[in-house]
Amino acid sequence: MKPDSIFDTTPEYFMREALKQAAKAFDEGEVPVGAVLVCNNKIISRAYNQVELLNDPTGHAEILAITAACSHLGIKYLQDCTLYVTLEPCLMCAGALYWSQLGTLVYGASDPKRGYTQKAVNALHPKTKITSGVLKEKCEEILKSFFSTLRN
Amino acid sequence: MKPDSIFDTTPEYFMREALKQAAKAFDEGEVPVGAVLVCNNKIISRAYNQVELLNDPTGHAEILAITAACSHLGIKYLQDCTLYVTLEPCLMCAGALYWSQLGTLVYGASDPKRGYTQKAVNALHPKTKITSGVLKEKCEEILKSFFSTLRN
Repeated sequence: MKPDSIFDTTPEYFMREALKQAAKAFDEGEVPVGAVLVCNNKIISRAYNQVELLNDPTGHAEILAITAACSHLGIKYLQDCTLYVTLEPCLMCAGALYWSQLGTLVYGASDPKRGYTQKAVNALHPKTKITSGVLKEKCEEILKSFFSTLRN
Repeated sequence: MKPDSIFDTTPEYFMREALKQAAKAFDEGEVPVGAVLVCNNKIISRAYNQVELLNDPTGHAEILAITAACSHLGIKYLQDCTLYVTLEPCLMCAGALYWSQLGTLVYGASDPKRGYTQKAVNALHPKTKITSGVLKEKCEEILKSFFSTLRN
């Protein structure tokens, strides 16, 4: 019997893959946000927040995933791609997604402090479709757990 | 007699250095935007737009200058630094400057299409000081010249 995941192309499947990236960030002491970029139902890049490791405030999961995907595809536009990310993008990442003309953005948890919708609800490209709340609780849980560990 | 530039720490001097970066972009067929990051009156990074070369929509001058500066300083915050950039930053770059907690932003030309002030006037960190219009005409001129060359 084939493993389900081989042909699983549901948003929940891809968000679980993004959560696996977030878990890597958690293990490395980074704010646990993960992302995967999907093109034709295939993951073409995976990334997690590496601000501390890279010592670079621009090292968010989304930025790393975009850079890797464009390098892989050899084009600088991602109109046919879907980005799954565990947390609502910040303004920087939304701006990067704008330039990439991303096809679809799917995020899990909302970010009431630094999500792009707090400052510029129209930050994304007008053609980008948006879905939020996929595996929301799991995406929130890993962040809550990280910050409560930090505090203790 | 010493060359003036050795001790020249005026905004115009640093903007001319950013314009030299923009000229490099021009020569390489990139949208001509250049930036320098200054700390204690010393340029610690220089960068120009490399979106085409890197095949990466995040390869703006500001992003490259921030990444290089943080790598050089070994810290991810730039509170004591001034960024001189020939064009008003876009939303992505303003978001990156927010995370870096940049001390001062000085830009030349305004960008009425994609400047951050068009979409989120408060995109920068609340502590970042902002000056605009330094060598404005020269910063505009190189962009106009680039786009008119493109059209012909």
